[in-house]
Amino acid sequence: MAVLQKLKEDYPWIETPLVVAAPMRLITLAESVVEVTKAGGIAFLAAGTDPSDLPTHLQTARDLLTKHSSPIPSRPNHLPFGIGFINWGCELESCLPPITQFRPSAVWFFAPKSPSQLAQWSHETRAASPGTRIWAQVGSVQEAMDALEAAKPDVLVVQGTDAGGHGLARGAGIAVLVPEVCDAIDSYLASRSGIARPAIIAAGGITEARSAAAALVLGAHGVAMGTRFLASPEVNISRGYRDEVLRARDGGQSTVRTKVYDRLRGTTGWAENYNGRGVWNRSFVDAESGMKESENKRLYEEEMLKGDGGWGLEGRMTTYAGTGVGMVKEVQGAGDIVREVRDGMRRVLQNVGRTEKGRL
Amino acid sequence: MAVLQKLKEDYPWIETPLVVAAPMRLITLAESVVEVTKAGGIAFLAAGTDPSDLPTHLQTARDLLTKHSSPIPSRPNHLPFGIGFINWGCELESCLPPITQFRPSAVWFFAPKSPSQLAQWSHETRAASPGTRIWAQVGSVQEAMDALEAAKPDVLVVQGTDAGGHGLARGAGIAVLVPEVCDAIDSYLASRSGIARPAIIAAGGITEARSAAAALVLGAHGVAMGTRFLASPEVNISRGYRDEVLRARDGGQSTVRTKVYDRLRGTTGWAENYNGRGVWNRSFVDAESGMKESENKRLYEEEMLKGDGGWGLEGRMTTYAGTGVGMVKEVQGAGDIVREVRDGMRRVLQNVGRTEKGRL
Repeated sequence: MAVLQKLKEDYPWIETPLVVAAPMRLITLAESVVEVTKAGGIAFLAAGTDPSDLPTHLQTARDLLTKHSSPIPSRPNHLPFGIGFINWGCELESCLPPITQFRPSAVWFFAPKSPSQLAQWSHETRAASPGTRIWAQVGSVQEAMDALEAAKPDVLVVQGTDAGGHGLARGAGIAVLVPEVCDAIDSYLASRSGIARPAIIAAGGITEARSAAAALVLGAHGVAMGTRFLASPEVNISRGYRDEVLRARDGGQSTVRTKVYDRLRGTTGWAENYNGRGVWNRSFVDAESGMKESENKRLYEEEMLKGDGGWGLEGRMTTYAGTGVGMVKEVQGAGDIVREVRDGMRRVLQNVGRTEKGRL
Repeated sequence: MAVLQKLKEDYPWIETPLVVAAPMRLITLAESVVEVTKAGGIAFLAAGTDPSDLPTHLQTARDLLTKHSSPIPSRPNHLPFGIGFINWGCELESCLPPITQFRPSAVWFFAPKSPSQLAQWSHETRAASPGTRIWAQVGSVQEAMDALEAAKPDVLVVQGTDAGGHGLARGAGIAVLVPEVCDAIDSYLASRSGIARPAIIAAGGITEARSAAAALVLGAHGVAMGTRFLASPEVNISRGYRDEVLRARDGGQSTVRTKVYDRLRGTTGWAENYNGRGVWNRSFVDAESGMKESENKRLYEEEMLKGDGGWGLEGRMTTYAGTGVGMVKEVQGAGDIVREVRDGMRRVLQNVGRTEKGRL
């Protein structure tokens, strides 16, 4: 309970069980972040690999919050949301000024080149903005232990392999990864003193109340969602992408983890052990069938001219999404998503408690 | 609750929350099955792809149960356990006689060539032994719907991609698959009358109480485990294999889904869309590095002479196991495993209920 207490102190506007909106590069910007904050969740404005527009987006979010009818309870001089960085792709010195100027409540670090890069970012962020909490995303027990040792993060985001977009190419689902990470943290802390227990936020495959409630049962203190927010009007997403998210079902079958989309889009820089999960499409099928990459890339670039028509099974535009995509069936406001999942988690856990009593 | 009621009528010896020991070819035979039954779980004696020894194993199990101090409550003339078949590899006409003679409480069907093969096996089994319940294992929403339509199974075993051994090459974890299958069943049943709702048993990655409790929150009526039972003295497993299961940690990283092990072992017959999850070893690394299959196979066959020394990271013997392998840390009696996980599930759910009350 000490961990939950700290969460409520660090993010005074949240309601629990905690729902987090994960940063998605180019997609989660000011408007969606503000809606999640107003609904009592924690959102991360995505800086991704390029912080050049970050001050503008942060200013927009601040302005939107100022216009909100009732003030958001936040720590003095801290923005009531966070910023997400893809560490390998960013220069620390370009990212520190907006952190210092805007003082986000948290930063979410993902995919550092090494534990020592994570340590450096964490150290410098804390020096520049002592109230900004450090969230470190990990995809394995090893990464969790490395992050704990290197950065003593306030929050560990434990991402299972069902997640959409980039993550470790190999991995386990949250049903396995969250308990194993929790046990490893217990062992680690048992032999050391003076290290605060990080909060655990589960991510990967969570799109609705049952998977979110399950994450709490597994040992998480809250849940992060990405894919579900792709179908909210406040994110920055093309209609073709969004429609494909709404269409796809049976996400274990309709999505794949692959490096094909990165290669076609010319995205370089991800470490060898990373890839991305997306809905499979014509580009992926062609690549699997042995089409030469130059030809596949040419067709991809041609397809870009089609606009929203370039998505779909026969399309070539990328639909990054997690296996939970099959349960994203309608467009819904980001704030409503937060409230629906949070209320649903409560209901699911209460019902299980009742059923259990009858059953035991 | 009607589903739980039916489970208790069909398997009168069980205690809930229900723990099931999945059939593992050549591994789960009479001794382990009997221990699970005595502990109030449902076990499946593995016929695998070859039923020729099945009558002997069934007779052994029956004898062991007869020697048990207190009688097991079972339906009259039915064995208090099931039999597991890999449908594509078995002749129905060789499998029906032992079913008719021994009358297992259930049969677990896995990997039929088609929904119509599943339909035929289910129909003929019910005709030959009307009290034998049909369990159908599925790995996607599509397979679940096909099985429901074709065979009206009493139980659907919903296997997530964290599972060890064979399963669909592509898939989602139980946190995603179980809720999506439950929703699809709801829709299916809403538009049809006279079809009983199947019980849902979650499988794949479950090795301890938290993941098992999470499965119930996700909508399952019980859980099946395989990997966890590999470390019980009653299963038929070599010491080298068992020791490797105990050694491996961080299962999302230490295991892979691959067809390499099937190819080296000369296992043919699995459909193209299946592969198996196991701990990676020298054979896998060599295959990834481009070693010719004939050479890799030669080395595999040489390694067989080493006995228990052939397992491990530098070994070449196959350690099929799920991503939950990292939480299997000690050898424990099969009955104790059932009791520990069942009691743990109750405790986890009660604690979550309590925490939730304080939190809301």
